[in-house]
Amino acid sequence: MIIVLKPNQKQEVIDQFVQKLTSRYDVKVNTWVGTQSTVLGLIGDTVSIDSEYIEAQDFVESVKRVQEPYKKANRKFHPEDTVITLPGGQRIGGGGLALIAGPCSVESEEQICFVAEKVKESGASFLRGGAFKPRTSPYSFQGMQGEGLRLLSEAKRRTGLPIVTEIMSIDHLPLFEDVDVVQVGARNMQNFELLKELGKIRKPILLKRGLANTIEELLMSAEYIMAGGNEQVILCERGIRTYETITRNTLDISAVPVLKRLTHLPVVVDPSHASGLNWLIEPLALAAAAVSADGLIIEVHNDPSHALCDGAQSITPAQFDVLAGKVRAVSSLVQTL
Amino acid sequence: MIIVLKPNQKQEVIDQFVQKLTSRYDVKVNTWVGTQSTVLGLIGDTVSIDSEYIEAQDFVESVKRVQEPYKKANRKFHPEDTVITLPGGQRIGGGGLALIAGPCSVESEEQICFVAEKVKESGASFLRGGAFKPRTSPYSFQGMQGEGLRLLSEAKRRTGLPIVTEIMSIDHLPLFEDVDVVQVGARNMQNFELLKELGKIRKPILLKRGLANTIEELLMSAEYIMAGGNEQVILCERGIRTYETITRNTLDISAVPVLKRLTHLPVVVDPSHASGLNWLIEPLALAAAAVSADGLIIEVHNDPSHALCDGAQSITPAQFDVLAGKVRAVSSLVQTL
Amino acid sequence: MIIVLKPNQKQEVIDQFVQKLTSRYDVKVNTWVGTQSTVLGLIGDTVSIDSEYIEAQDFVESVKRVQEPYKKANRKFHPEDTVITLPGGQRIGGGGLALIAGPCSVESEEQICFVAEKVKESGASFLRGGAFKPRTSPYSFQGMQGEGLRLLSEAKRRTGLPIVTEIMSIDHLPLFEDVDVVQVGARNMQNFELLKELGKIRKPILLKRGLANTIEELLMSAEYIMAGGNEQVILCERGIRTYETITRNTLDISAVPVLKRLTHLPVVVDPSHASGLNWLIEPLALAAAAVSADGLIIEVHNDPSHALCDGAQSITPAQFDVLAGKVRAVSSLVQTL
Amino acid sequence: MIIVLKPNQKQEVIDQFVQKLTSRYDVKVNTWVGTQSTVLGLIGDTVSIDSEYIEAQDFVESVKRVQEPYKKANRKFHPEDTVITLPGGQRIGGGGLALIAGPCSVESEEQICFVAEKVKESGASFLRGGAFKPRTSPYSFQGMQGEGLRLLSEAKRRTGLPIVTEIMSIDHLPLFEDVDVVQVGARNMQNFELLKELGKIRKPILLKRGLANTIEELLMSAEYIMAGGNEQVILCERGIRTYETITRNTLDISAVPVLKRLTHLPVVVDPSHASGLNWLIEPLALAAAAVSADGLIIEVHNDPSHALCDGAQSITPAQFDVLAGKVRAVSSLVQTL
Repeated sequence: MIIVLKPNQKQEVIDQFVQKLTSRYDVKVNTWVGTQSTVLGLIGDTVSIDSEYIEAQDFVESVKRVQEPYKKANRKFHPEDTVITLPGGQRIGGGGLALIAGPCSVESEEQICFVAEKVKESGASFLRGGAFKPRTSPYSFQGMQGEGLRLLSEAKRRTGLPIVTEIMSIDHLPLFEDVDVVQVGARNMQNFELLKELGKIRKPILLKRGLANTIEELLMSAEYIMAGGNEQVILCERGIRTYETITRNTLDISAVPVLKRLTHLPVVVDPSHASGLNWLIEPLALAAAAVSADGLIIEVHNDPSHALCDGAQSITPAQFDVLAGKVRAVSSLVQTL
Repeated sequence: MIIVLKPNQKQEVIDQFVQKLTSRYDVKVNTWVGTQSTVLGLIGDTVSIDSEYIEAQDFVESVKRVQEPYKKANRKFHPEDTVITLPGGQRIGGGGLALIAGPCSVESEEQICFVAEKVKESGASFLRGGAFKPRTSPYSFQGMQGEGLRLLSEAKRRTGLPIVTEIMSIDHLPLFEDVDVVQVGARNMQNFELLKELGKIRKPILLKRGLANTIEELLMSAEYIMAGGNEQVILCERGIRTYETITRNTLDISAVPVLKRLTHLPVVVDPSHASGLNWLIEPLALAAAAVSADGLIIEVHNDPSHALCDGAQSITPAQFDVLAGKVRAVSSLVQTL
Repeated sequence: MIIVLKPNQKQEVIDQFVQKLTSRYDVKVNTWVGTQSTVLGLIGDTVSIDSEYIEAQDFVESVKRVQEPYKKANRKFHPEDTVITLPGGQRIGGGGLALIAGPCSVESEEQICFVAEKVKESGASFLRGGAFKPRTSPYSFQGMQGEGLRLLSEAKRRTGLPIVTEIMSIDHLPLFEDVDVVQVGARNMQNFELLKELGKIRKPILLKRGLANTIEELLMSAEYIMAGGNEQVILCERGIRTYETITRNTLDISAVPVLKRLTHLPVVVDPSHASGLNWLIEPLALAAAAVSADGLIIEVHNDPSHALCDGAQSITPAQFDVLAGKVRAVSSLVQTL
Repeated sequence: MIIVLKPNQKQEVIDQFVQKLTSRYDVKVNTWVGTQSTVLGLIGDTVSIDSEYIEAQDFVESVKRVQEPYKKANRKFHPEDTVITLPGGQRIGGGGLALIAGPCSVESEEQICFVAEKVKESGASFLRGGAFKPRTSPYSFQGMQGEGLRLLSEAKRRTGLPIVTEIMSIDHLPLFEDVDVVQVGARNMQNFELLKELGKIRKPILLKRGLANTIEELLMSAEYIMAGGNEQVILCERGIRTYETITRNTLDISAVPVLKRLTHLPVVVDPSHASGLNWLIEPLALAAAAVSADGLIIEVHNDPSHALCDGAQSITPAQFDVLAGKVRAVSSLVQTL
């Protein structure tokens, strides 16, 4: 950590500050005197130093971290890829492209079982489906909730596909016993109390990037879960909010290679929410395969124009089948290049 | 609601769709045939129509709402300003500039009581102070939690100032009995399960705008609380995330007059979080007074450079005293213009 | 075009307005009376109607275009792909992936000729190289200017590669006689006087998307050039400005399929400027190939760490050779899927 | 300037680099060895060092400037406010609130003279009016151009108000002889060739911030003009592009106090373009006065609903008269606080 002081500080102020830093933290401090400012360099374990505390000192001009502020998620301290393996053998991470597919919302037993069977035939290895739905409007359909989870279990029983579904409140956790991968939605990425609780369970967590969150903040939220003891975190890029309005969000495709460089955790892409437009899903899925994402999470609905939510960004099982073939081809090619 | 259809649709498809709309919703539909597209105009109660459902129809090009999607928060249906009045007579809304001040975090009984007395002397009518702290890093100070709430109560007992403090999980609600105004932080603005629960209580809610949320989304989150039966919502503009990096966030000063036009709810401004820089707080507070905000929420710390969080954006009681005088002067002037 | 009027307008105001619209423009107007507002639908040639003029009427609530505001760039009126073909047979558009490569800046005859020969060997069909350089700081290297153009010509003479280089002022046009494709940089995307002049010449224009410009604005800038008579426009996605700071810009990969749907013009991607990081160029180039971009424009420098500008985002000829092989493989595969 | 090297660099690589830095630039280099990385601190005149050059070195992790990259615009080297004084005695800067008002576009002699007289009566000391108009669409009204400048001169002759008008191409400069303040529009803020030419003239330049430009980039563009010898630059905040769609742009009110801290140049605010909505102009103008902006530039049109452009963001002379009284009151009050 490098601390630039404001010009013309008294030596005793600097000395006192250095004294405080070395007594409070396990660091050594180097002082370097420039023409305009004095700069302090901190060596040691600086992750636990709160840079806001440093910036609050009235003689400090600015602070720059050299070490990343996350440890458990950091590839530097854990060079090998984390691979999430389910009891049924399904894997995310470590090469290959896992397909997670299913409807935005669970709507009925017929619907979820039909879609589950279809996406399984096309090569999906996980079933997604919303039981608790975060909706901007209180007047929109909020999901089938507990009954939706029950229907997901039924679809799992029939197809063997593990379930990925979103949790919106820690109070719902008892209902998630049969859920295989617990999803944290974009709007809850910094719901820190939820993250802390999910750190205590022993199921993989699929953590979606928030609409306006940086890559570093996504990693810090993963760190919350991991610091609690649950190291099975899957990161998900699902588009960020920008000024562009044609697409619902802007897929930050760079986030995939950036994340894979910074962390050992697997990274999946959600082209459905990223675009909000069903005809954009296939090209974005191909792009994700081309940058070696570890998986795709895609909304598939038997009848998108009658979906109870997000129909405009859902594709049919037949379209998913075509897409699955194409992304597998690109993924296989890219892994041989 | 106006629905533009894709070009060259068969008449029977259009007829079926119109039939479905009029049977499902309480609306009448006008059809208008253009050179390139057919347009449907829906008259009636369109708030409950899910525009995503409409957009998902494969023959629909785009949808435009004419009515706003919120009702209870809408000034059209409730022209008079909502005024939040506390049992002790403190008010937010309906003219005047309420001052809410106090430290980022409660740190000790001496600290919170000292600051409370100081800000009261300078004219603050509410005490803010964080007991549960949302922090990006799991390794940062997370607040004094239950003990923090107890110390806030002590400061309230001594000064008579009602307490404004943030809730991070509905499970903490039993601890908030003595809290007067419950704050929802920016990162929880779309934590819909929390909003629903806060709709059931009978205390004012101070709802902060999320970092990347639109003004309409803020109003929809207020609508969640109000739909539950709690109509005492105070909106808070606290800066949005943009590409600019000098300031922590970009204060959207326009949001104040825009909100006051769209809704009857009071609007307060948080210049501390908006800027992240203590020397910017005063000019931003003056700007908020100039646009007739209903209040200011400001971080005041007895010793900013030793604050356990957000010190860089805190001002001292002495600086707050100067600021309070200035914003009152501007507020008074503006109300006479 | 759909015009929503404010509630409660007098019939004569509406009648006068309709009268004005039909007399001034070649349109017919349908009137539709809702519960809250009256809506006007305009049929005919609405491209020439200035929506700002409509919005300025004090009885107008909002305006929505149904037709796109661009004609010559619009795929609806020109369904086949535009293919840019150079005298030497090099092509951009209509399938295939054109590679445009070369250094950020021309620095010397040896440098530009060496890089030109290398990228040609690796399969590039165009040479890029900056002679006039837009730099944020007046104290940074501004390019070799006229001499740089002369050296580009020399490299072209030796390799046969057509030249792509940026113009920063219409006054420099006489120097661009031997330039094959004239580039408009992101910062000049809305330099309308420059666009108008480039509409008068008969060379292909490579038009880069501005840092904060929408896809529609990019198409409107293309329309400026095309309206002047020059229909050879190549669009370039090069990253947009967002709140994320790890990458210099955020590559909007969705822009490629969106543009290819809206326009017949070819679309190329610049992964060098999009990321600002040399290790990100290859994955982003693969993503561009996967979404069927018509070309890539990539910075290649013989010695990136001594480049006079943008070295951090340049790759070596050897790295380019590897990249070229990979993107060709992905492009070929995708075209067969 | 602080340079963080990648871990595990050979000593000789570091030595060579330090040698190169000290021989090429007028700096001394301090080396400091941390646990993970080596850090170099550069003392001396680092403004002329191109940080991209440094970042391009393959052993460099990151670079942080301690000194700002601008000199002539920097308040550190020029503590007193720059005051722009016109021959007629009109001033911008150094206290007080200059009012610059007039129509978006010059449309006729009657129009511009009428508006000029009206805004003068209300206290404006400068007349604005567009002769050359930057328009997104080539099919929109492009301004009266040379004839527009002639009519501005006529209005100046009648009222004595100096003229502020936009230049879109350096080729038009000969027509600007009677123009008093030359405006550079937001879309040309980084048209560096234009800035260089404006550095050679001896008229004040009103430089608008680009839609997606940082405060530092605005200062670097001012530096371009000043480096050419023209130190009379007025900066203008006119709203930035964000994800919010209710307002046309988001006024960055913080930019005013931030700029006034970083630079000695005067700062004016354009609430008309910032909001795009006429009812928002007054509150935003009051906010600008409250943060001690040096001036306001406001669109005033005799008949906004018939304006040939930007009518929706224009106010009438009567509304301007009310606004002028209010902003003067706030400005006077703030200067006494």
